[in-house]
Amino acid sequence: MAIVLGPNRYGKAETRLVRVSKDGDTHHLADLNISIALSGDLAATHLTGDNTGVLPTDTMKNTVYAFAKEHGVAEPEAFGLLLARHFVESQPQVHAAKVAIEAFAWERLGPHSFQRKGDFTRTALIDVSETAVQVVSGISGLVLLNSTASEFHGFPRDKYTTLKEATDRVLATAVDAKWRHLSDKSDWADSFAGATAALTQAFVNTYSYSLQQTLLSMGTRVLESRPELAEIRLALPNKHHYLVDLVPFDLENDNEVFIAGDRPYGLIEGTVTREDVAPASAEWYL
Amino acid sequence: MAIVLGPNRYGKAETRLVRVSKDGDTHHLADLNISIALSGDLAATHLTGDNTGVLPTDTMKNTVYAFAKEHGVAEPEAFGLLLARHFVESQPQVHAAKVAIEAFAWERLGPHSFQRKGDFTRTALIDVSETAVQVVSGISGLVLLNSTASEFHGFPRDKYTTLKEATDRVLATAVDAKWRHLSDKSDWADSFAGATAALTQAFVNTYSYSLQQTLLSMGTRVLESRPELAEIRLALPNKHHYLVDLVPFDLENDNEVFIAGDRPYGLIEGTVTREDVAPASAEWYL
Amino acid sequence: MAIVLGPNRYGKAETRLVRVSKDGDTHHLADLNISIALSGDLAATHLTGDNTGVLPTDTMKNTVYAFAKEHGVAEPEAFGLLLARHFVESQPQVHAAKVAIEAFAWERLGPHSFQRKGDFTRTALIDVSETAVQVVSGISGLVLLNSTASEFHGFPRDKYTTLKEATDRVLATAVDAKWRHLSDKSDWADSFAGATAALTQAFVNTYSYSLQQTLLSMGTRVLESRPELAEIRLALPNKHHYLVDLVPFDLENDNEVFIAGDRPYGLIEGTVTREDVAPASAEWYL
Amino acid sequence: MAIVLGPNRYGKAETRLVRVSKDGDTHHLADLNISIALSGDLAATHLTGDNTGVLPTDTMKNTVYAFAKEHGVAEPEAFGLLLARHFVESQPQVHAAKVAIEAFAWERLGPHSFQRKGDFTRTALIDVSETAVQVVSGISGLVLLNSTASEFHGFPRDKYTTLKEATDRVLATAVDAKWRHLSDKSDWADSFAGATAALTQAFVNTYSYSLQQTLLSMGTRVLESRPELAEIRLALPNKHHYLVDLVPFDLENDNEVFIAGDRPYGLIEGTVTREDVAPASAEWYL
Repeated sequence: MAIVLGPNRYGKAETRLVRVSKDGDTHHLADLNISIALSGDLAATHLTGDNTGVLPTDTMKNTVYAFAKEHGVAEPEAFGLLLARHFVESQPQVHAAKVAIEAFAWERLGPHSFQRKGDFTRTALIDVSETAVQVVSGISGLVLLNSTASEFHGFPRDKYTTLKEATDRVLATAVDAKWRHLSDKSDWADSFAGATAALTQAFVNTYSYSLQQTLLSMGTRVLESRPELAEIRLALPNKHHYLVDLVPFDLENDNEVFIAGDRPYGLIEGTVTREDVAPASAEWYL
Repeated sequence: MAIVLGPNRYGKAETRLVRVSKDGDTHHLADLNISIALSGDLAATHLTGDNTGVLPTDTMKNTVYAFAKEHGVAEPEAFGLLLARHFVESQPQVHAAKVAIEAFAWERLGPHSFQRKGDFTRTALIDVSETAVQVVSGISGLVLLNSTASEFHGFPRDKYTTLKEATDRVLATAVDAKWRHLSDKSDWADSFAGATAALTQAFVNTYSYSLQQTLLSMGTRVLESRPELAEIRLALPNKHHYLVDLVPFDLENDNEVFIAGDRPYGLIEGTVTREDVAPASAEWYL
Repeated sequence: MAIVLGPNRYGKAETRLVRVSKDGDTHHLADLNISIALSGDLAATHLTGDNTGVLPTDTMKNTVYAFAKEHGVAEPEAFGLLLARHFVESQPQVHAAKVAIEAFAWERLGPHSFQRKGDFTRTALIDVSETAVQVVSGISGLVLLNSTASEFHGFPRDKYTTLKEATDRVLATAVDAKWRHLSDKSDWADSFAGATAALTQAFVNTYSYSLQQTLLSMGTRVLESRPELAEIRLALPNKHHYLVDLVPFDLENDNEVFIAGDRPYGLIEGTVTREDVAPASAEWYL
Repeated sequence: MAIVLGPNRYGKAETRLVRVSKDGDTHHLADLNISIALSGDLAATHLTGDNTGVLPTDTMKNTVYAFAKEHGVAEPEAFGLLLARHFVESQPQVHAAKVAIEAFAWERLGPHSFQRKGDFTRTALIDVSETAVQVVSGISGLVLLNSTASEFHGFPRDKYTTLKEATDRVLATAVDAKWRHLSDKSDWADSFAGATAALTQAFVNTYSYSLQQTLLSMGTRVLESRPELAEIRLALPNKHHYLVDLVPFDLENDNEVFIAGDRPYGLIEGTVTREDVAPASAEWYL
């Protein structure tokens, strides 16, 4: 069997952009980490080092900065669409572009003063090909905890099972979620705020018998409240809080004192989707 | 459109196992980080919190430790197969298991003394379903550098291109590679050593006109030398080494003094495959 | 010259504690990372492995959890004092205890629901010896940025200087600060909130000609507004924002488009202190 | 009490330098991460923003690169001395310079091909003032493990002690050590290799009743074998390997199956020194 080149892509990862825009003395800040990957007719450079079709990754970086000046940076989804379309439209050998953006939030402290927020990272993943456009938004690092209203029991037991059934436990997770939009036009800021609020409220309001149940509840709440979305993918680590055994010290522990564990951790992953929705045109999670 | 549960899985991530085996006074060490994900008939727990089918992730962790004692830990691929098959075969509601392993190497210093090697991490990714078995091996964090024998020119220039053509540059990367085996039986240790040597030698021996060319060379060398492999996927960050401008100090810089950059970096990704090979039965990269 | 044992200490580092306290249905959360180091008559274990004086580090961990139950966890400074005093008072061979605490903040979302805040980490460093008690509070990871009102010029130039003078630049830093209290009694929560507000306001309000000037302004503001403090130590990385050269693209860059750099970075460190204050009784920074 | 400026310093941290030197077709590689901090008459910039004495940190970075060309980079200690002396001697307002270097090792694969070693990082810390010169070398991240020949018992028990006595346990640590030289002239490469070998051999050969005993043994071995050294400081995390309880699975665990723990961990710190040696002229650990 011959050995051949399969799927491939290339680009510039993690271009760090800070864009200041000025409204008189009042400044606004956009802070992004942008990764670009292009695919298309790229066999020649692999086979012979012929770089005729290889727009330098350095140029992708320059384009980010130049576009930031020319077009400004409004929402990450919009800026990603602008960039992805540019490469597909201007480079004939490029058939598809993927732009992944992390957006870091800053809180205003004054007309030109800011404090970086660390509560979570907003993400956007844009795929533009010659025939399709796909927009995915997301969030990572949103850590939520319920100190009660969570149980876990009724599970099967095999010879390696020692876990006790729990009728009251801490449930905590670091939400990593991506949601796919039905179209490439939306009020991105409102959509992100709404989806994030729905995720958070569903976590808070679900009396949980498993993190899986909470996951489905969170995903469902997002799709119910955001008609512009097709589907959502959640990866929820179960950040275990182990109840400390205080019996040796003649102390009771009524779900009050916990070890916050590092590893291992449960990991619950699932997609919630609208039935009959058009399939994704490009990989959008993992 | 109704809102429904889509693809999902769950498991225990990052169970840290150290297994000592004793051959008289001479000890041997296996040091693994093991992540398990199961999928199958798991709708009930999502919909109602009915955990009848949810083998606890704590049990998966216990199984890792019990199996380490019962079966020993030889090669990570073999240990992963054992674990993955166990869950699919023993839990009727589980239709597929994915086991991802990181293996950390230790150098012997004495009969029971060891020093951890930090040059790279060996990986294994095992997918067992009711109808298919797939074994993927890999490496991450292998950092290679050629201080010459690398050029980059002949690329297209658009209005955002400022990069100068290079006829002599440093080429450096941190190899992240996964390769899929044709079967679930192999001499895993020999296969890993051979594939790693092929990757390294191809990097060293390729006079490079682009990192893409080096990538194809590396992948091809692995498949040529390892008939047991179906395909290989490489993700090669271009760890840029920027030539420092010493002209302001009246000094020449004949490719001698470099800034080792952090971000941004180029990222070259590609698959090299045998033609007509059977397709993968499960996701195996990304 | 004989070879002898010099200064030494030992302890348990990074015990992770989450303490839930319940006020009816309303829960409260404390989330701490606690490191303990004891010193005293510990020569025997070094010299011969005689552990008569070596209270196990495992016991220190247990003590953290038991004390959390017995005494609750109010402010990190108070909890650290409790722990440090316990070891010095209960173990005759222990002459001094150092307790370092990181406290992670959570925002309330409901009676028993919380979201972790990621804006900064609050720290406390407690040193108790048989003759002295010292309390240091602090903050790390507080990232602040002024998009104007910062200049840097008038610096000396040697043959290796190429930096241009700047009359308008971005000034950004990640505040790492520790401040020493005059006594071991204070309203710790109010003191922390006040010191943090003073740091932030001074950064915002200082028209800056150097990050050093901003540092002194920040430290002075803290001491002026918090009479309970003796001195403060600040380590301020200069998180460089490099102005992008857009001239090749026929674009102006009026301090609008920046590269957020990773490495290298300036690092400005300084202490601001009250004159004639009693010296520290133990190492409290670095 | 007046509020005044206390000790302070500033500099450029983490300048990343890769230096290629060419011996015909055979290339050599030095890979360093260099941090510089200067102190002296720096009050003016703090008080008024008068930067007359503030050599830019950008200049420090340039100096690193220019010196790498002019002088080459032999051993990190020598390069650090060169840099530190330069700033103290050429800038009258600078009274002391501290240069901290991390050196990353590469293994040769060919005349101009290299693989980065990840087993440990070599460090150097140089302090030059107008009256004193101090050289400290070190190592970090050297992970060592004995799978037997370690016990821990005979410790005191208080009401919070639950730890069982161990007559056979795994002992593992990640060595973080710094050692101070008696003079500023040495065969730095030989000294580093010898000290590292002594550390490793002492760890391997010590039958240990406590990690403290191992620490003293390691430090003593270094000073015994390296007459050029004044003292050594070791920080040894006790990387706990917890024996898994396999009794629920009717399996014995004869020190064969372990959990490699993350947090918490013991931390043993100590200095070993020659008696009557001249004291350090600058802070050299922590």
